[in-house]
Amino acid sequence: MHALGSAPIEFWFDFASGYAYFAAIEIEALAERHSRSVTWRPFTLGAAFKVTGAQGLSSTPLKKDYAELDWKRLARLKGIAFNLPKQHPRVGLPAIRAYYHVERNDPRAAATLAKQVIIGYFRDNLDTDDPNAIADLASRLGIDSDAILAGMADPEVKAIARQQGESAVARGVFGSPWIFVDGEPFWGSDRLPMVERWLTAGPW
Amino acid sequence: MHALGSAPIEFWFDFASGYAYFAAIEIEALAERHSRSVTWRPFTLGAAFKVTGAQGLSSTPLKKDYAELDWKRLARLKGIAFNLPKQHPRVGLPAIRAYYHVERNDPRAAATLAKQVIIGYFRDNLDTDDPNAIADLASRLGIDSDAILAGMADPEVKAIARQQGESAVARGVFGSPWIFVDGEPFWGSDRLPMVERWLTAGPW
Repeated sequence: MHALGSAPIEFWFDFASGYAYFAAIEIEALAERHSRSVTWRPFTLGAAFKVTGAQGLSSTPLKKDYAELDWKRLARLKGIAFNLPKQHPRVGLPAIRAYYHVERNDPRAAATLAKQVIIGYFRDNLDTDDPNAIADLASRLGIDSDAILAGMADPEVKAIARQQGESAVARGVFGSPWIFVDGEPFWGSDRLPMVERWLTAGPW
Repeated sequence: MHALGSAPIEFWFDFASGYAYFAAIEIEALAERHSRSVTWRPFTLGAAFKVTGAQGLSSTPLKKDYAELDWKRLARLKGIAFNLPKQHPRVGLPAIRAYYHVERNDPRAAATLAKQVIIGYFRDNLDTDDPNAIADLASRLGIDSDAILAGMADPEVKAIARQQGESAVARGVFGSPWIFVDGEPFWGSDRLPMVERWLTAGPW
């Protein structure tokens, strides 16, 4: 029998990725079923697009229309809300920086923040480019809003956020959501069943 | 209860698409389970790339490596052969033209040819850019090889093949495989379970 690992599942995603929204809702429960934790890793897909030459789904003719149809169809199938933000896609750097700021001292609070940010973006038109909107959300989660505002503006936090994105691309990450399990890469929310198979029985 | 249609399932694909290979192996059986037929629609993704600005997976940094890993992983999971051709991706215009030539008189023979061409490409290094290689394969399937060689060179057949690709893009097709069921679009081999749900219970 294959010896299964116990390392955290790495969950890389862009806050403006519709497929990441669906995966973000399910990833913690999936990990818990296999006694794993999740390391949330928000980054901006723009870092990968510089290497691939690709554009985001919502910035590409034809793909834009299909993605919107498919996201709404997935939401109906799963019975969850989905509202494309009025301005989409947003880069969301303040949200990414807020995550890495909080993570330095409290990874669990940061994970909760990340999940609520992407849910807010795709349900309640949360402006991930507005530091005040992010601070307000954090405050409702019990995170000090003044501290998070300072964190989002901290050059050290900005550098950490940028370096995380660069490290992802260096490891071959070009899409969102992107999952590493014991080093094995899985791209897309459609791959969650395959991730679950890997966690259950190991490599094939 | 939703009144389900009986129209053929449209199966659009590029002969050099790895994900289309996996779907091509399963699509006929899927359709038969729901008393549907399959209309095979080979086209070249290049026609869509002119509109989206995208490149094929195997022509894009990072995506190229992941796609190869994912195809091999899928093949192991499904227990089927998968050998990336020595020269890949090929445009495959002779194969596309051969399909539409045969289809004019014998759609069933054309469907068999299409399936065996993509299987040949991803198992036996079939050169889809070589009219003689396509004619040899057709001959083994009982199709007259002289007639198919003439068909591939026929300006009328070339025009039909080009128009089919253009009509796909005009309907929003930008990827491979691409399935229309009663007008509903589904992109990717990962969507086959969703296609099956649609065929079983209709729209949701």
